[in-house]
This record gives sequence, structure tokens and C-alpha cells, in this order.
Amino acid sequence: MMGCAGKILRVNLSSGTISVEEPGEAFYRQYFGGTGFVAYYLLKELPKGIDPLGPENKVVFALGPLTGHPVAGAGRNSVGAKSPLTGGIGFSEAGGFWGAELKKAGFDAIIIEGKAEKPSYLWIHDGQAEIRDGSNIWGKTTGEVEDVIRAELGDDRIRVAQCGIAGENRVRYACVLNDITHAYGRSGIGAVMGSKNLKAVAVRGTQNMPVADPAKLQELARWMATDNKPNWEGMKDTGTAGGVVSLHASSALPTKNFRFGQFEGHQKISGQTMRDTVLVSRDNCYACPIFCKRVVKTGEPHNVNPRYGGPEYETIGSLGSTCGLDDLEAICKGNELCNAYGMDTISAGVTISFAMECYETGLLTKDDLDGLDARFGNAEAMLSLLEKIARRQGVGDVLAEGSLRAARKWGKGSEIYAMQVKGQEIPMHEPRLKMALGVGYALSPTGADHCHNVHDTAFVKSSSSYEDLGIGGGPIPAADLGERKIRILSQLLPNRHFGNCVGLCNFVGWGNDKTLELVRAATGWKSTIFELLKVGERALNLAKCFNLREGFTQKDDVLPKRFYEPFLTGPLTGVAPTPEQVEEAKRNYYAMVGWDRETGVPLRGKMKELDIEWALDAATG
Amino acid sequence: MMGCAGKILRVNLSSGTISVEEPGEAFYRQYFGGTGFVAYYLLKELPKGIDPLGPENKVVFALGPLTGHPVAGAGRNSVGAKSPLTGGIGFSEAGGFWGAELKKAGFDAIIIEGKAEKPSYLWIHDGQAEIRDGSNIWGKTTGEVEDVIRAELGDDRIRVAQCGIAGENRVRYACVLNDITHAYGRSGIGAVMGSKNLKAVAVRGTQNMPVADPAKLQELARWMATDNKPNWEGMKDTGTAGGVVSLHASSALPTKNFRFGQFEGHQKISGQTMRDTVLVSRDNCYACPIFCKRVVKTGEPHNVNPRYGGPEYETIGSLGSTCGLDDLEAICKGNELCNAYGMDTISAGVTISFAMECYETGLLTKDDLDGLDARFGNAEAMLSLLEKIARRQGVGDVLAEGSLRAARKWGKGSEIYAMQVKGQEIPMHEPRLKMALGVGYALSPTGADHCHNVHDTAFVKSSSSYEDLGIGGGPIPAADLGERKIRILSQLLPNRHFGNCVGLCNFVGWGNDKTLELVRAATGWKSTIFELLKVGERALNLAKCFNLREGFTQKDDVLPKRFYEPFLTGPLTGVAPTPEQVEEAKRNYYAMVGWDRETGVPLRGKMKELDIEWALDAATG
Repeated sequence: MMGCAGKILRVNLSSGTISVEEPGEAFYRQYFGGTGFVAYYLLKELPKGIDPLGPENKVVFALGPLTGHPVAGAGRNSVGAKSPLTGGIGFSEAGGFWGAELKKAGFDAIIIEGKAEKPSYLWIHDGQAEIRDGSNIWGKTTGEVEDVIRAELGDDRIRVAQCGIAGENRVRYACVLNDITHAYGRSGIGAVMGSKNLKAVAVRGTQNMPVADPAKLQELARWMATDNKPNWEGMKDTGTAGGVVSLHASSALPTKNFRFGQFEGHQKISGQTMRDTVLVSRDNCYACPIFCKRVVKTGEPHNVNPRYGGPEYETIGSLGSTCGLDDLEAICKGNELCNAYGMDTISAGVTISFAMECYETGLLTKDDLDGLDARFGNAEAMLSLLEKIARRQGVGDVLAEGSLRAARKWGKGSEIYAMQVKGQEIPMHEPRLKMALGVGYALSPTGADHCHNVHDTAFVKSSSSYEDLGIGGGPIPAADLGERKIRILSQLLPNRHFGNCVGLCNFVGWGNDKTLELVRAATGWKSTIFELLKVGERALNLAKCFNLREGFTQKDDVLPKRFYEPFLTGPLTGVAPTPEQVEEAKRNYYAMVGWDRETGVPLRGKMKELDIEWALDAATG
Repeated sequence: MMGCAGKILRVNLSSGTISVEEPGEAFYRQYFGGTGFVAYYLLKELPKGIDPLGPENKVVFALGPLTGHPVAGAGRNSVGAKSPLTGGIGFSEAGGFWGAELKKAGFDAIIIEGKAEKPSYLWIHDGQAEIRDGSNIWGKTTGEVEDVIRAELGDDRIRVAQCGIAGENRVRYACVLNDITHAYGRSGIGAVMGSKNLKAVAVRGTQNMPVADPAKLQELARWMATDNKPNWEGMKDTGTAGGVVSLHASSALPTKNFRFGQFEGHQKISGQTMRDTVLVSRDNCYACPIFCKRVVKTGEPHNVNPRYGGPEYETIGSLGSTCGLDDLEAICKGNELCNAYGMDTISAGVTISFAMECYETGLLTKDDLDGLDARFGNAEAMLSLLEKIARRQGVGDVLAEGSLRAARKWGKGSEIYAMQVKGQEIPMHEPRLKMALGVGYALSPTGADHCHNVHDTAFVKSSSSYEDLGIGGGPIPAADLGERKIRILSQLLPNRHFGNCVGLCNFVGWGNDKTLELVRAATGWKSTIFELLKVGERALNLAKCFNLREGFTQKDDVLPKRFYEPFLTGPLTGVAPTPEQVEEAKRNYYAMVGWDRETGVPLRGKMKELDIEWALDAATG
């Protein structure tokens, strides 16, 4: 029996001071890690109302208790800051190898404060940390940066998390990338790194990790790799884009800025087509047998560089169907650009599709768009806009602000085409079909986000994802917002947030039982699923409190009006939630999770139950 | 994979109709059984404000999904009705063999309505049920009744639950007994049976029970019988009274109507002394290896009949130290009388100790007490009063009403000596030491009850009972009412109530993990601890709503004032909760469990979360 509590690195870039904190096991068990830690530190330490791109903001990288253990999905970890895109809490998760490396370097989290005088990077290795000059990596692509750092420090096994040129240029949806292809995509944390003159965090670790029951972890890893293979080999085969064709069939493939759910060119951009054409390899995260990551290569005209991986489904949707674009090689190029410059493909694509719709409806002209014929389906326009955004050149300087700010700048009613919640663009999942997911978009403290959300598709086929929480009644249709579904949402959201605290990938179907076994084996804690759900609920409430402090109200928990307009063709014809349904669902959710039904403010009793009354005081004091 | 859903028998004694209901698996999974079923049916079916002793009341016997499976502790099951003692919800649990027999007869619950014209009993055997003439068992002791029924029906393996002479006479704390020695002790359900002219429920079953994973159940049973033996063999050795000496040492042995926590004669009435003197055998419940039940025999003057078992700790305390009485043989006789006549030993003993204190302080005279010299320690007075109460003779007719009603009848300020909550007498656990238990007494919908409560002693030694629920901070002193302890209480109470829904004995230390395994193996449901706690919370909220409908408010959630008066001697000198501490703890509890902090009324959102909004409508509509 052993606990799990390690070291947290605190780096102040203004003063150059570096310190190590050991908050103790009780803290670890209360907040676990990942987004739990991120939300804790941001709420505790950030003053109200700071500029997300000013030196007062902090960037928090946080691993979970599972990070670095050799089990599938445990490559996942989190980064967060006050979001320059939403002005609320920002956090984002990525897989890869960087997290495991940081754990082996002896740290569970890094809190980065202040602003460096000049371009810098952080170098962490086996319990040591230093702030180094980053002049020679500033303005460089992610691949170049990785090369330079590894050469400078003389170790090819160094893992680099970095913000890219888009981050340097404070693109509000600049991402953080590790190993170039693993994106902490959402919330614009890359811009926060850029604003701090912090280009990268390079890590190398060779320390042994404490583990309570290594044999059990091995047994679980073996189960996932062998017994459970039938459940993930499809993901390996076609990647996350394997569902493009069926999404089109059910009218849930976001097309042309969410005006449609079906896309004529869907076959050309499917995971199957990618597998059979541009795919040259598959990639994985630390210890993961699934290899869901794509590696693609093309010849002329785009000459896509396989070093930058290949597009996820989110990228296929956002740079492809959402932009009305069926040119897979161009999408792959767009993916390369986003990974090379450090931009969230979802926000980039949906901001571009917003511009395209403004252009097609005549709200914008070629002159507004630097002469680009930015109609839906124009691959060159899409790629050109990505370049311009990353460098904030021409119209790219406007689009780098995200769709909501661009719409507010341009006016003319264009805001109705900005497909976003709280300023963050909508991911590639259709709220007209997946209605609880739509409510989840509205509710999420980070704005529209699929990693902090629950997919109704899980409800349609079986009740296995919530049956073990004691919510009966069998499968439930996607197009439903009744009380039972909201009850399911209210329990599965903490579950999802727990995954982001513990450091487990959503794509690896461990299930509740085995997740619990993983936690116990890694930490030695005698946890229960009850505890794990409370950890997730705690993290979610901390995030909610952060936003409350920043002035967010229930009025910010809204969906774009477009999702109340049913499609006029296809299998979803006439199907859409009504505003009243969504408002009622939202209020039922508030009530069920212990928040005031009308205002959405957490009740003090709920905070007492979760032992985080301090968070409500911080939010309202 | 199989579910768990059987048949519920409904018997209307007024009309003589008998029917069978099959509410389906979803109902079973929502409410599980035991007190969950009892609370459900009483809230759904009883009109507001009925006379508990009138024909509109209903008696509900309910098993749990584990009842009848061959594992330790699964002999436990519940009975309930509107309580004639409190006017609120009444339920009570017992072990024994009757529950398993009923399950094998094909039923999970019995709902008994109306009132028979003449003394009757119910005979249930393998899916059949009939109401039979009970004239020849009316007025008989429990032993006689069992003999007569078995002879009449020609089967010695028939199990009988019955109400006793005290129930016939509507003693407000008359219990229901099965197999003579297993008491559904609290809440006065025996009086409700008596008021219905229903003397007994005789059961015989030979059917096979469905079971999802018999091998797993066997494995768990074997673990309890062998590996876990060190944890229960002390209980087998000395029974529940094994702690008398240490309770005295810590000043927590209720003495002389709770005026003191230490009793000079404690050694004479300890479980160890019982073992070494009057004990002739040990008894068990269905499938239980622990044999915690005592069987005692004495010679003159009391000639205690071993057929009526032997005293539990609760009986040792209530008929012994609480009455200032160190005569173990007299206590054993009192136990025999209570089991023969069907009286709750706790309420009987504490009502007698109330009379004794009134006598010693001069509020009552010998004349008031039928000439008895009812000073503390007078065994003959105690035994004589038990006889009088059961038969409602002389002063027994007043004491049969319970201490609160007796105090109100006698007046003169005697109510301060009535050691009760909501009219039900306090069990043998000292709230001045075990402060959360004291708050639990105040909060319990059934009035002071140790089976619907949590013992602080679990907190003192280790945090194992709540660590797995994620409540950190290590062990916590018994004499503490801080927020952390109330958080523990707020989670352990649903846990305890779950035990009363599933049908597991508190004395068998299965722990959360193995309880979950038992549930899964018995039912085939893929449950989690989260679900099980929600089941307990649901049952507790139903019970709360029942009381709300009857007009109970937070003002009824109070402890007797005596517990705010510290002892003047012994190790607890000067230690007692203050009224303000208890009120604050109560309000913290309300808030943490999703009730209004001031009124204690469940919030609608909590009821939505638990999927029992109907219960709040029933309570407030």
C-alpha cells in the first residue's frame, strides 16, 4: 500500500525563480491531477479580471496519477490558463509522450508565472529545471524547434511541448503541441505561452516512478492489448475519421459552417479513403497499442510532410466538410500547417468556415479577404487563410481573434454565422442530432468542447455507459432532451471530467471497473467509483467557479441559434431542439448537479459536500 | 447476465383478497428492496394523516436482492408501517431465517392492508398465500404460536414472523419477531400488526432462487467464513455485548436513564460474563458463520427459557445499565419476556428507566407505579413493569405508550427524562461521546435508531469506512462535530441505508468492495458503489418525504437536552456537544445532502437527480 504524491514545479519567468512544491497526498487525492490541478491553481492563484495575454496569467501543465504508467491511454494530460479565446477558464488535453517524460523527470505539474524578458524555453530533466534562452527558436516551426532544442541539449530523446508561431503571434486559438503532432488544441493556451515569451518546455526523465501494484498494471495493459483488441482495432484501422461516412448518413457531419449535416464529398475525406491513399504510417501515444494517430504523405502540389502526422476526425471536419472541402490532400496540408504553426484545427477551420459563409452570403467581399475567393470548397483559400492567421497577416489578423471577435468587428449581423459558445468554436459533432452534447456545449465552462462533453451516440446503442451508475430505462435516442437524458448527462459529465483529471484518453475504452483498477494499482488508494465521480465533479465545479468570478452567468450557457433551425433535407429533416427545450434541459441540469436552477450558481451545500467551499468564496467574494 | 425481479404479494385483510404484483426489474434496481421498498410503498399508498393503528395503515415486509443467498449477513430484511410510536415512517430490520424462507416461497415483499374481522394469520408457501383463522393463537406467547402453527400446518420447518401479545395490545413499541428470537425491534410495527388482527405470517418455501453467478457467491461466502474469520470471531465469542467493559471505560455505557456513562456493575453484565455463566449455546441467522446470537439458560429464581435466546448488547444496556441493574439473570429474564410478548427491548427498557428516574426524583410515587419500588437497580420492578406493559395492566397501560406520551400524561416536567427522538427511545450509544451518532439520532426519519445511523467509533480508529468514498484527512475523534465529520456522516448514512435496502447485516463486515461483488453476483447487474449509495440516498429521501407529509419539520430533528449536559465524573467529564454545535451540524448535513439548509426540506433538484421527484410532490402536494 502506497500513496501517490510527488512534486510540482513552479517557474516564475519574470523573476527567473524556480521552486518545487510538495502539496502532499491529501491534495493529490482531492484533486487527482490533470484538469483538477489546473482548475485548482487557476482559481486559487489568478486575480479576477486579468488579461489572459498579460503576465498575470499562469500556464499550468498537469499530469494525472496514471500518466507515465505503461497502460493504454495514460499518455493523456492537461494544460490550462485563463483562456484568451473565452476569457473564462481554459484547459485542454493531449496525448503523446511528453507527459510520461515529465513524470519520469520527477514532476506531476508545472506552474508557469510571469513573463520572460526575451524568448525563452524551459528545460526540465530529472528533478532539475532551468530557463534557457530561446532566441534561436523564436519564429521557427515546431519541427525546427524540436530539432534545435535536441541538438542544443544533445539528446534526441528529449520531448518538447511548444506553442508555435501562432502562439508567438497570440492567435487566440493557438494550441500547445507536444512531439509536434499531439495537440492540446482548445482554449488558446499556446497564445498564453507566446505572451510569456515562453516558446517551449523541453523534458527528459529517467527516474523510476513509484507504483503500488505493477503486476496488476501489467495485467490490465495486457487485457487492453489482447482481450479488448476487437473494441479498438477499427480505430487503429481508420483512425478517428472512421465515422465520416456514417456521420454523413445520419446527417451529423458538420458541413459548410454547420448549415448542413450531409456532405456530398464525404467519401473523399473519410478515414477509409485516407487509409487507402495518403496514409504512410500509424502513430501512437505512450504505451498505447491502439495507434489511432495518422501519418500521411503526399506529392505535388502540397507535398505534405509526414513528420506533422495526419488529420484527426476533428480536422477532417473542420478544415474539410465544414469548409465545404473534399480535397483530402489539401486537408492534410492544412493539418500540417496547423501543427507546424501551432493552431487548433477546430477553431481555425470553423473561423475560416465562418468567413466563407460571410463571403458567400455577401457580408464580406474579396476585398475584405485580401482578394481571396473564399467560397466553400476553395482549398487554396483555406490554406492561404491558415498561413495568414498564424502570422496575423492581412485578414488573418482579424480571423486570429476567432469567429466571435471577427463577427463583432465586421458587424452586419455576421455574428449569427459565428458557430461558437463563449467564444470557442464548435467541434465536429452535430447538436441537432446529438442533443445532450449540444446542451453540454452550452454548459461547458471552457466553451464548446468535445473533450469536456458526452456524446449522445453512447446512449443510442446501449445503456452500458450509465447503467452502472444506476440510471435505468435502457438506450435513449440521440434526439431527446428529456429529464432522464439530462440525468445521464449530469452523471457522465463528472465521469468525463474525471478522465481528464486522472489522465486517461477517451478513446481507450477502459470502462468504470477497469479505470478503478488502474487507479488502485497505480496509487495504492482504495478508491471507489463514487470517489472518482466526485473528483470529476469537484474539477467541474472549480472550473464553474472560475467563470463565475470572471462574470459569466447562465446567459453565457447558450447554443448558437443555428442549431434550433432544422435541416430541410436528409434524414434529420425537421429535427432540432427548440430553445425552450434547451433552456429547460439546462435548468434541469443545474438543479440536478446542485446548482441554483435559475442562475446556475453552485449551491453552498454542494460545495460543502465536495469540500471546496473555498471555491465559491473565491468566485463570489 | 440476468436481472433480479420477482413477485410482490399484496394481501387485503378487510376484503380477504390476495394478489401478486410484478413491478419489473427497473423498479427493483431503483429501490432494491428492504427499507427502499418499505419507504416506496408507504409513501405511495398511505394517505396523509392516517391513524397508525387504524385499518388504513399498511405493513410492508420486504427482502433485499441478497436475501436468501447463502452468504453471511443476508438473513437481514425489513418491515415497516406508519409508526404508532412516532407518527412518522417506521421501519425495522431483523435477521433470522424467515426472510430466506419467504424468498424461497417466491416473494420479495408482502404488502398487508386493511384489518381482519377476527384474529388471523397469513400462510405463504411456494407461491401460494391464504389468510387463516388465528383464534387459537391469539393471546399466546411467541413460542406457543410457533408450536401451534407448525402443528396445525404439519411442517416443523415453517418460519413464523409474529407480533406477540404486546402487539395485540397495541403497545406502541411492540416489535415483530421471527423465529422468536429475531426482532424487527423498532418503530412499533408489532402494534400495527395487532391492530389489523394479524397475529403472524407463516412461511415455507422450497423453490430455487435465480442467481447470476453462484460460483462467485460461494467464493465470497468462503472468504467470509475463513479468511475474514479474525474479524468476527470476537463477535462469536462474546456476542454484541462484548464491548460493555470498554464502553464503561470510555464513559459511553448508558446508565440510569443516560444520567451517567459509567456503571459500577458493568463487569457483571458484560458479554464475557455472559459467556462464562449463563450462555448455553450460540445462534446464527441464515447462512451466517458468525453466530453472534446468544442462547442463555438460568435456574431459580428466573428459570430463563433458552428457547427465547439471550440478550443483545442493546438489551443488556436498556434493561440493565440504563435501569441501573447489574443482575444478568434478571436481564436475561427481561429479554425472554420481551421476546415472548413481542416488545422492543430498547424502548421498553428506556421507558422503564424513564419511570425509574421519575420515581427517584419524586415526580412519581409508589402509588403511581402500582406500588412498585421502582428505583434504579430493582430487577423485580423492571420485570414486573415489562409484564404490565405487555398486557397494558395498571401503570403498564401508560408506559405502553412510550416515554414521551407517558411524560405528557404525567406532566410535572417529566418530559426532560424521556430519552427519545420523535417519540422513539434512544438506543444504547452515547451521543456525548459519539457526537455524529447523536446528530444521526436527531436526523433519522424513524426517530432515534442505531440501525439507521453511523457510529463514530468507526471514525476514531481508522478512516477505512470513508476513505474509499474519497473523504480524506484520516481518523477523526468521536467528540467532534466539525464539517469534515458531517461530510462523512452525509455519505455514510446513505451507505448504511443501502445495507438496509439490499438486505445485509451491519455486523458482517463485507466492506464496499465485497458488497458490490455480492450484489453483482446475486443479480447480474453491473452496479457500482456510486449506484449503491444512490439507492441508499433514495430510500432515505423517501423516508424523509413521508415524514414531511405528516408535518414533521426541522424542529423535530432534535436531541434530548440531557445530551448537552456533560458528565461530572469519568473520562468524559466536561465533554458534551452544545445545542449550537448540533444545530450547525444539522444544517451542514441538510446542505450537504441537497436539502434546504434551514428547513431540511429536500431540494427539487436533488429529487430530480435521484429520479424521485414524485416523492416531493407526494410530500408537499
